Amino acid sequence: MPSLDLTADPVDLTAALVDIPSVSRDEATIANAVEQALRSQAPHLEVVRNGDAVLARTRLARASRVVLAGHLDTVPINDNLPVRRTGTGAAAVLHGCGTVDMKSGVAVMLHLAATVVEPRHDLTFVFYDCEEIDAAANGLGRIERELPDWLVGDLAVVCEPSNASIEAGCQGTTRIEVRTEGVRAHTARGWMGRNAVHAAGEVLRRLEAYEPRTPEIDGCRFHEGLQAVAISGGVAGNVVPDACVVTINHRFAPDRTPEQAVAHLREVFDGFDVTVVDGAAGALPGLEAPAASELVAAAGGEATAKLGWTDVARFAALGMPAVNFGPGDPTLAHTRQEHVRAADITRCAGVLGDFLR
Amino acid sequence: MPSLDLTADPVDLTAALVDIPSVSRDEATIANAVEQALRSQAPHLEVVRNGDAVLARTRLARASRVVLAGHLDTVPINDNLPVRRTGTGAAAVLHGCGTVDMKSGVAVMLHLAATVVEPRHDLTFVFYDCEEIDAAANGLGRIERELPDWLVGDLAVVCEPSNASIEAGCQGTTRIEVRTEGVRAHTARGWMGRNAVHAAGEVLRRLEAYEPRTPEIDGCRFHEGLQAVAISGGVAGNVVPDACVVTINHRFAPDRTPEQAVAHLREVFDGFDVTVVDGAAGALPGLEAPAASELVAAAGGEATAKLGWTDVARFAALGMPAVNFGPGDPTLAHTRQEHVRAADITRCAGVLGDFLR
Repeated sequence: MPSLDLTADPVDLTAALVDIPSVSRDEATIANAVEQALRSQAPHLEVVRNGDAVLARTRLARASRVVLAGHLDTVPINDNLPVRRTGTGAAAVLHGCGTVDMKSGVAVMLHLAATVVEPRHDLTFVFYDCEEIDAAANGLGRIERELPDWLVGDLAVVCEPSNASIEAGCQGTTRIEVRTEGVRAHTARGWMGRNAVHAAGEVLRRLEAYEPRTPEIDGCRFHEGLQAVAISGGVAGNVVPDACVVTINHRFAPDRTPEQAVAHLREVFDGFDVTVVDGAAGALPGLEAPAASELVAAAGGEATAKLGWTDVARFAALGMPAVNFGPGDPTLAHTRQEHVRAADITRCAGVLGDFLR
Repeated sequence: MPSLDLTADPVDLTAALVDIPSVSRDEATIANAVEQALRSQAPHLEVVRNGDAVLARTRLARASRVVLAGHLDTVPINDNLPVRRTGTGAAAVLHGCGTVDMKSGVAVMLHLAATVVEPRHDLTFVFYDCEEIDAAANGLGRIERELPDWLVGDLAVVCEPSNASIEAGCQGTTRIEVRTEGVRAHTARGWMGRNAVHAAGEVLRRLEAYEPRTPEIDGCRFHEGLQAVAISGGVAGNVVPDACVVTINHRFAPDRTPEQAVAHLREVFDGFDVTVVDGAAGALPGLEAPAASELVAAAGGEATAKLGWTDVARFAALGMPAVNFGPGDPTLAHTRQEHVRAADITRCAGVLGDFLR
């Protein structure tokens, strides 16, 4: 089994984690290494194993508890392992699958787990599996069902990449299908039919004219969006089509519930047949909570809105304020060129260490 | 081999032909029967066999020659054989695969071939194969390549179903793809991309606003059309699409060449990427030609425009006026409910007999 030195520089710990391949559903090796390292190097923590998730926590009876969460799995390796280093010192960079998403965040968490033995808040560390695949397989969902008390706390910090700055809350998402109907006819006598693709022009017109909201919530500016993500229609090369479907993804700020977002879409596409395909609630920033505002202060006082959907929303649904805070540029996640600046890792370990000590 | 009585009532001859199954590429049996019947019952004709096509003609040195053409094949049988009769007398109806498309027309041709032994025009009869499948397999195309002198004449009458009225010329057809491009982005940050599906809205808008021409040519009213027949675009449920393709079928009156039609479409979709997928020329009615105007007079003086594309256009491309004239409602062709009124068959045989005698 690979061994991990949790007290080493988190940059080196990141490199060691990256070199343990852990594509979703193949996390046993990394979970074993994490469990073994926590049991031997963080004896002040209660450790449990759940599937390929590893959970660890203090029981110091502090007034508040902070939950730190990160997933152990990565997307498939794309000819970008083992880890490769370029630059030195503050300009050092780690390249490879998982450097951003999110073994650098996991390294920061493991480092804190082993080195912050007298934290100001009780701490729970959640290292989980299967975040990169179907939501139904997500390890955090399984823990919520099987070990719900392990997710209780006053603030959740999800160490997904956020360019080492606090990203608060997250936007919700919903996908709808807008259908138009027509009447088939031979194109040689097109006027005997009614073209469903032409009718979809009005749907695209409303999309084009749509003015997204950019509400400020708890000092964070969100930015909604409404985008056609697919369109399809057609029967044969000489037939007026009788059906067309436009699939639309709406990203909405967390001041709206999914139900409110869908009601809004039904207004936007009034007169059309609208079917909801899927949806997930957003998460309010919740930065007025004491632990959250302390963390923002430790990070320099700035927080921005998280626009993508992350597991932050799962914690929000449990009633906890939750933020993203982790090393790396999220736009590099899932790319072959994935890489993280060592300085980001050092900063995140420093900010969280200051906040927790 | 089934035997055919060419001097019988063309309604009975239609029934006999329908009961010889002849789905495209399986026309040997019907071609054998047609060839045998012509050789034995129309000794005044020169007969040749070419693949599963049968050709027959007079050599009377008349001042003009009329070519009558019809295909022997049908679309696949759809639980609609053998032939079934309903009604009696003028209200009699034949039901079954090929009754409309086009064994009733073939029966009229065979009847005329055997019974009009002293025609006013020289006559050429072309019974051909594989009209219902790929244009590349079309027997008329093969005859054009291998026996071109058999298609020479002053008027072509294609006995495809036309409700027993003269349909003159035919519209051309072309298919284009109009493409829009965009820039991919995650829908959580949609403003960083450019949505190619939204951009296709302008293409649909122009389609919707399009006013088709309805030119009158040689007294026939044509009716153009411009219809989206397919649309597709989309990458994934959370990605702003970077490409969308609208496939459009344009049916154009025969006063335009395919090149002129495409030039027109490039104007309509100015600013967009237009690719021509396929196209076929239309055919001018050519009703001012003496033989054509005689036929129109024999049919009662009325001619209408053929809007669909038929093999009439092949003859037009050879420089001949060409018309459709045959029994049956073309909208019943290729349906399981295909059926033809006996009265249509009788009328077509009568009009053509009067015209040719």
